[in-house]
Amino acid sequence: MSLTYKGAGVDVGRAEDALARVRERIAKTKRPEVIGEIGQFGGLFASPGSDMVLVATTDGVGTKLELARLLDRHEVVGADLVHHCVNDALAMGAEPLFFLDYFATSEIEPAVFSRVVGAIADACARCGTALLGGETAEMPGMYAPRTYDLAGFLVGAVARDKVLGPDRVREGDALIGIPSTGLHTNGYSLARDICARVAARQGGTIVDVLTTERPELGGHALGDALLATHRPYLREFRALSDVASVRAIAHITGGGWEGNLPRALPEDAAVWIDRDAWEIPPLFALLAELGEVEEQEQFDTWNMGIGLVAVVPPEDVDAALAAVPGSAALGRVVPHSSGRRVLFS
Amino acid sequence: MSLTYKGAGVDVGRAEDALARVRERIAKTKRPEVIGEIGQFGGLFASPGSDMVLVATTDGVGTKLELARLLDRHEVVGADLVHHCVNDALAMGAEPLFFLDYFATSEIEPAVFSRVVGAIADACARCGTALLGGETAEMPGMYAPRTYDLAGFLVGAVARDKVLGPDRVREGDALIGIPSTGLHTNGYSLARDICARVAARQGGTIVDVLTTERPELGGHALGDALLATHRPYLREFRALSDVASVRAIAHITGGGWEGNLPRALPEDAAVWIDRDAWEIPPLFALLAELGEVEEQEQFDTWNMGIGLVAVVPPEDVDAALAAVPGSAALGRVVPHSSGRRVLFS
Repeated sequence: MSLTYKGAGVDVGRAEDALARVRERIAKTKRPEVIGEIGQFGGLFASPGSDMVLVATTDGVGTKLELARLLDRHEVVGADLVHHCVNDALAMGAEPLFFLDYFATSEIEPAVFSRVVGAIADACARCGTALLGGETAEMPGMYAPRTYDLAGFLVGAVARDKVLGPDRVREGDALIGIPSTGLHTNGYSLARDICARVAARQGGTIVDVLTTERPELGGHALGDALLATHRPYLREFRALSDVASVRAIAHITGGGWEGNLPRALPEDAAVWIDRDAWEIPPLFALLAELGEVEEQEQFDTWNMGIGLVAVVPPEDVDAALAAVPGSAALGRVVPHSSGRRVLFS
Repeated sequence: MSLTYKGAGVDVGRAEDALARVRERIAKTKRPEVIGEIGQFGGLFASPGSDMVLVATTDGVGTKLELARLLDRHEVVGADLVHHCVNDALAMGAEPLFFLDYFATSEIEPAVFSRVVGAIADACARCGTALLGGETAEMPGMYAPRTYDLAGFLVGAVARDKVLGPDRVREGDALIGIPSTGLHTNGYSLARDICARVAARQGGTIVDVLTTERPELGGHALGDALLATHRPYLREFRALSDVASVRAIAHITGGGWEGNLPRALPEDAAVWIDRDAWEIPPLFALLAELGEVEEQEQFDTWNMGIGLVAVVPPEDVDAALAAVPGSAALGRVVPHSSGRRVLFS
């Protein structure tokens, strides 16, 4: 019997069909700098001037994918992927320009693909980012049935003299925290472990645990809280930049506070954080309680309700707080001697 | 018992250790445009001028990953990832600027990670491409033990008036083909299916099939032939551009000839290919024979020995052939009426 590529599990037509379903939504992300159409070997984008710096970042969404699959909420991870990258770019001071996605699975389900990539396109459109290209990989046997992985790549730009970072930060600078919507895209393996433990204790399934309404969450289910979309901070970044001399920004992702705040600090600096400056959202408290997770471990894994921290000079604090509703003055930059660099009061 | 992120299978330190092993090789990819160090929220790269066009591309290496794992040849897929992206960028006329990688697995094995990412760095260095960033995702339970997935993202640049593409192509233009080193990174699911069939017939394992020396391959084993590195065409692209007025380039990847050559052609054009212009390498003939793969299916899946096709004006053919040793005049651009667009003599 004659073997074929399709018989081997790769159906080039299936990928094309899946893409056709979202073509219009992708077209809506087009910016004036985009040259030509989708389907070229590379996406074309007019270069910003040589007074600009390109900022490139890549991210995935981790095992939040698994929860999205369990609860059939594929749109969330598409938007998450874009927002995670956008936030990383603006942490360097950059506005997003264009995005590319990588979608890998064993057998493309066009309905699922179009929900994920459609959500990617919609998130790009909302962030003013061109969805310039992507790769859809059908790899028979590589992924468990109905699972897929996602990676995103984003390029942004910032004027050369506006690049944010540790160099600009001074002792005494203030920290402005902006709330997260939940775990964003980090610490899901621990959250899933906690759900599995509760499920085992109750003799139910993980889906049972995820769909039970909980008084601690105002009657919402854990699954809904865990599948809140990673918050994009583009609007807040612009509002802050308008009124304050932003020095550096930390996007609180994998590694939590200790893993990310120091990336916005010079080597000889630490931060002192007032634990009463914001209220830790009930989702984190509930997870911590169910998993008996120690406090340091919580802050080393999750964002604990603060998704982005901006470093501003002390005189700009009031203006910054007024510009971003819900933001909080978290603490300040202090000298670092040794040990951990995020110190809590 | 208190739960931890590490206990849940994610060890942030393991990822850092893995990365530390390749830091020096990554440093060697640095170009003058790179600003700052690795570890920022986004990689910084000085923008080329506004007379340039950025070219962005993303690729994976498909199920070649599975063969690399079976035969413990992890370096190959790292280099493949870079070369695939570089070739896609030069198909638009662009020189590569910077690259980012995404490495996803269930549990990072630092030894394997450093072989893959080290090979990515080395390939970037050889292609003059800065390895500007990357994401290492540890996703417990998402991948089968010891498997991983890879995605690459590359940005290149081309002068605005040098962008290659279908618009430049005219009827009568000539096609210059440059040899591949093997399957490159496409059609591996079919090749693996063929190996599985042979293994079943012989009552052996796939590894047996892959490691048996074969007279048809000059005594080499199928696994060696299948794990040849995806050939990068940067040097050949430069040599061609020096002597010929290159109009368009097709990188023959997923979808084979019919899937890729039309991407370099205007809608009303087809290509006529002289099947005697080059010799199909024994690897393809052997796979076709073992799998009883029909000829059209072979050309729709594999590159059949030609990895890159450049379209040049007829008067430049001799210079082009002289500039790229091993290249062949494959045929010419003809009008397209209906049906398939790659026509073989």
